[in-house]
Amino acid sequence: MDLKPTKPLSGFIELAPTQQRFVDECAGRMLAVLRSAGFSNLDLPAIERAEVLTDKDNWDEIETQMFLFQKGDTKMGLRYDGTVGLSRYVAGHLNDLTFPFRASQFSKRYRGERAQRGRYREFYQMDMDIMGVNTLSTNYDAEIISVIQRTLNSVAEFIGDNYVCVGSRPFWDALFDYLGLSPEQKKAVFILIDKRDKMGDEDFAAGLADTLKNEKLENEIKSVFINGYGDFVNKSANLDAAILELTNFMETLRAFGVKNAQIDLSITRGLAYYTGLVFEFKLASFPELGTAAGGGRYANLAEKFSKTKIIGVGAAIGFSRIFVALLESGQIDISKFGSPIAAAVLPMGDKAVPFAMSVVNALRDEKIATVVYLDTEKKFKNQIEYADKIFAKYSLIIGEDEVNSKQITVKNMTTGDQQKLSIADTIKLVETE
Amino acid sequence: MDLKPTKPLSGFIELAPTQQRFVDECAGRMLAVLRSAGFSNLDLPAIERAEVLTDKDNWDEIETQMFLFQKGDTKMGLRYDGTVGLSRYVAGHLNDLTFPFRASQFSKRYRGERAQRGRYREFYQMDMDIMGVNTLSTNYDAEIISVIQRTLNSVAEFIGDNYVCVGSRPFWDALFDYLGLSPEQKKAVFILIDKRDKMGDEDFAAGLADTLKNEKLENEIKSVFINGYGDFVNKSANLDAAILELTNFMETLRAFGVKNAQIDLSITRGLAYYTGLVFEFKLASFPELGTAAGGGRYANLAEKFSKTKIIGVGAAIGFSRIFVALLESGQIDISKFGSPIAAAVLPMGDKAVPFAMSVVNALRDEKIATVVYLDTEKKFKNQIEYADKIFAKYSLIIGEDEVNSKQITVKNMTTGDQQKLSIADTIKLVETE
Repeated sequence: MDLKPTKPLSGFIELAPTQQRFVDECAGRMLAVLRSAGFSNLDLPAIERAEVLTDKDNWDEIETQMFLFQKGDTKMGLRYDGTVGLSRYVAGHLNDLTFPFRASQFSKRYRGERAQRGRYREFYQMDMDIMGVNTLSTNYDAEIISVIQRTLNSVAEFIGDNYVCVGSRPFWDALFDYLGLSPEQKKAVFILIDKRDKMGDEDFAAGLADTLKNEKLENEIKSVFINGYGDFVNKSANLDAAILELTNFMETLRAFGVKNAQIDLSITRGLAYYTGLVFEFKLASFPELGTAAGGGRYANLAEKFSKTKIIGVGAAIGFSRIFVALLESGQIDISKFGSPIAAAVLPMGDKAVPFAMSVVNALRDEKIATVVYLDTEKKFKNQIEYADKIFAKYSLIIGEDEVNSKQITVKNMTTGDQQKLSIADTIKLVETE
Repeated sequence: MDLKPTKPLSGFIELAPTQQRFVDECAGRMLAVLRSAGFSNLDLPAIERAEVLTDKDNWDEIETQMFLFQKGDTKMGLRYDGTVGLSRYVAGHLNDLTFPFRASQFSKRYRGERAQRGRYREFYQMDMDIMGVNTLSTNYDAEIISVIQRTLNSVAEFIGDNYVCVGSRPFWDALFDYLGLSPEQKKAVFILIDKRDKMGDEDFAAGLADTLKNEKLENEIKSVFINGYGDFVNKSANLDAAILELTNFMETLRAFGVKNAQIDLSITRGLAYYTGLVFEFKLASFPELGTAAGGGRYANLAEKFSKTKIIGVGAAIGFSRIFVALLESGQIDISKFGSPIAAAVLPMGDKAVPFAMSVVNALRDEKIATVVYLDTEKKFKNQIEYADKIFAKYSLIIGEDEVNSKQITVKNMTTGDQQKLSIADTIKLVETE
């Protein structure tokens, strides 16, 4: 019989136990930050109705980008982000939730496109959103940024320093109005700005020329990427309002204790959702990772689901993007996650098993990570090799003598030192490690 | 425009924040037990190749039971259990892992069948498996049972006591041989035994009669459900071996500290996988839940993936089955999970925000769950109502006086008592809550 393949599908992540412990540790620290900031963890379904996932009627088109399937008459698919499910959930629970409502999500998302290097088809994102009904101060935008920075700082020993770039959608809207662009031109230019990073300066300039056919206008737009908003103070009321909102916001960020914040009007966060301030976090030591986290404000989060106006500010941390990429490129020393086992209990023969298990249970009661080698017919050599291979800190050797005396032979696997100890003293020794 | 539906698809679980906190607490405790028992957490892809998920070539047939889709030439689908991915993973990493290898998984699984009451199409299971190459003592079967009991005991305040029923596949094999059944009869009778719980005694008897057409044989088999193995001691070498293995195993369970274990030969755990001892946990207080956890031993876990013989003993805890069912039936008091917020910081006006945020950051640094109300134009009444609605234990009121004096007005939301405290004293007060 042919053997089945043992590799996962391309684009799917599969970590070794040591890598997984590192990733779990990072997730645990970051989620603890979100809890301390009062976010309610939501665990929403990974599968949504197709009509919830998309507005498009074109099944064939979205089928290439998503994992979709049909059950009976119902078309459904795997979520590609956390926002679509959150919008549905909040709209469905308006009366059960207290606003402003803080929600966090840490879950797998799916992209059905063909796998490419560095792009996963199944990946984790960590979302946080604050939602208000009808009003929501931009102070909350600052709080979201502050909380993201706290989560990233909680794992700074691995990912180093972070910084945040803040952009403004209203600035571009006001600028396009001031420059007198047509609706078609506005849309085309905005798409260009959004893709500017990927296309490079030359193609961007060519795209602008193509769309605007007006050198003066082209230069005005290009100037934003050189001088920021500098050339556009006192040009229009809307421009001034957008600039004032942005500069005030940078003050607020400082008051919120946010470090390394800068204005970057080239940040636009794509075409969908966002209507206000937008932001992206990057890692100073890992520029090749691009955006580590990003988000912004949306004026009407759940308009597809509810007539109630829900204003939101939210962000997603690219959890797999950061941690799996760093693991794959070997840039993180995870050696300290290689050895989770404090004690390997080694009973010599079946007769030693009952006392050995009472030792095991006593250690586990104290939350000491303990394994026991139970193939008791194996030689001592095999048992101690096993303890060595799993990097156990101590081996607890239990033979006839130990069963009779209730004194355990405890071997320090680093130094090789051995001593005989009671269960209570063994626990004390292993715990203080 | 028509609004989109806000309900999740039928068969999908969506919890309220308070319910989610309860479930997260239970998962956290149970996973801590697995870590203390030295299990390595694996987070495998939810999507597998169709050929990995099933041996059947009949796409149409399995399509009704699973979520399947095709990308390019590759047929794939969502996993329905944890074992199939684990088998593939272990077979693919034989040289990277140390055996016996202990793996745990806590992940979502999917069943594509039409949703029925109490049956979810997306649900969590918590798996634990111990795998050995070529040998694996049945001591490990006892250890798995011991560890499951420890995980269930860690949430006993919610789910009460548990007990475990142990069956033996070799006993039935030996009995069928002893009774001289044909291969077809063996298979048919085994299916009947497996379904006996659901079909009831009468249908079971009718099925036996239909298959065996021999009253003496039928009565011998029925006797197992009355007298256990009692009528089959000293009947054949294989029967005696199976009975001895089982009775010795019950002794081992006692030595491992397992409570409330009993032999129940009607436990068979279906047709697939298992080849040795099998077991099921039930909850004494919630018999209607049926099996809370179940598992057993398989002689060759990864034979579809590798020529190396991997013997395993494993089990899955029906995590959603237990906790979501108990939540839905309202049988658990989760009121203590209603109030995760220790401090609601209420700045009176935008000028109070910078000092308020320094207080917020200081509390969050101490991992004190803290929210801040940042719609500062809202009246004090709205702010304190918000603190009340989210059941914050303390409100920290910060107006002009507080900003100037750096003394916070701290209101105990239960007693209504108010006092003025420094940041340090506020932290002390809130922490000791």
